[in-house]
Amino acid sequence: MSQATAPSARTRIRRLPDRGRYDFATVAAIVDATMLCTVAFQIDGAVHAIPTLHWREGEHLYIHGAKASRMLKALAHGEACVTIAQADGLVLARSAMHHSMNYRSVVIYGRFEAVTDPDYKLRSLEAFIEGLYPGRWQTLRPINDKELNATTVLRIPLTEASAKVRAAGVKDDEEDLSWPVWAGVIPLHTVPGEPQAEHDSVLSDVPPTRFV
Amino acid sequence: MSQATAPSARTRIRRLPDRGRYDFATVAAIVDATMLCTVAFQIDGAVHAIPTLHWREGEHLYIHGAKASRMLKALAHGEACVTIAQADGLVLARSAMHHSMNYRSVVIYGRFEAVTDPDYKLRSLEAFIEGLYPGRWQTLRPINDKELNATTVLRIPLTEASAKVRAAGVKDDEEDLSWPVWAGVIPLHTVPGEPQAEHDSVLSDVPPTRFV
Repeated sequence: MSQATAPSARTRIRRLPDRGRYDFATVAAIVDATMLCTVAFQIDGAVHAIPTLHWREGEHLYIHGAKASRMLKALAHGEACVTIAQADGLVLARSAMHHSMNYRSVVIYGRFEAVTDPDYKLRSLEAFIEGLYPGRWQTLRPINDKELNATTVLRIPLTEASAKVRAAGVKDDEEDLSWPVWAGVIPLHTVPGEPQAEHDSVLSDVPPTRFV
Repeated sequence: MSQATAPSARTRIRRLPDRGRYDFATVAAIVDATMLCTVAFQIDGAVHAIPTLHWREGEHLYIHGAKASRMLKALAHGEACVTIAQADGLVLARSAMHHSMNYRSVVIYGRFEAVTDPDYKLRSLEAFIEGLYPGRWQTLRPINDKELNATTVLRIPLTEASAKVRAAGVKDDEEDLSWPVWAGVIPLHTVPGEPQAEHDSVLSDVPPTRFV
């Protein structure tokens, strides 16, 4: 799936095409580095979009939800567009026009399919939890059949996907470079705060998380 | 616009409705606390979604982009669905099923309209920059007519919007409370890193930003 050009017309980056990346490694790395995506879909010809958690296994992005979810039902019957966007930095230029943002984003087009095999679904949910909290799955009260049945897992292939990345300094007009204002990049990071244990938590050791 | 019930059928929160909020103050506060939204729309009946920056003035959410943008053209002719999602914390329960996330999200339905009046557009862009960097607009090389003409500003009313908020501890099943695993919330914060001044930045004082 590694490629330098867009896999389809609709994934081709039209605005600022030099920021476009179409190789699987870049798309997968952004999916892995983020937790939240937005899933856009249609119901009776009207557009809807809902933020949800995601994870990746191999060449698919996975989402999950309650079996009764309106979104998950709609996704079984039509095309979807999944977006991910991570803000990495504020770019402050000498002119308003050249202010920008460093970011990593992904857009995926395609059709979700349900993961129906119970064993496969179980392993997918394990991968979801382990991706967030390595080693945690085995320490949890085991999932039961009722919980597994109530949960829908869907996946969409990463084949028709594009990434867009800005990771650079300020691009000002040549004639503005001496303008007397600070110009530069302020990076943005997501960091964990002080863990808040439940008052009745049996253990006091906070588990490791992949998001730090 | 303050209200306790959904402004329309499509904004009514169906999954976990106790997390739904429909009052303007809650929606506006989430729009203000975030920079990135995803705009979902249709082109020839197919669904697309693109992440972009947003800001708020009064009862509208604003976005901007290059005049030639495919998205901005499509938005002039159809309904859109704007989503915002902010991850506030990881919720670690004793069972996989009750793992969750603290978050604030907004979904807005409606139609964008272009801000065509040049003075109004100028003031909107000023509000955008000032919202991110209070006091910065006046220090910048002034925007010129060419830049203003090349920029499209669109706005969508916050009237048909809903918010969904989870800000709570762990909700485990009663019989799992003694399970020997850490349970609690790990808050997530977005923080600025060390500012990276351009090598030719005239000033060394980093401007204040609203996002810290």
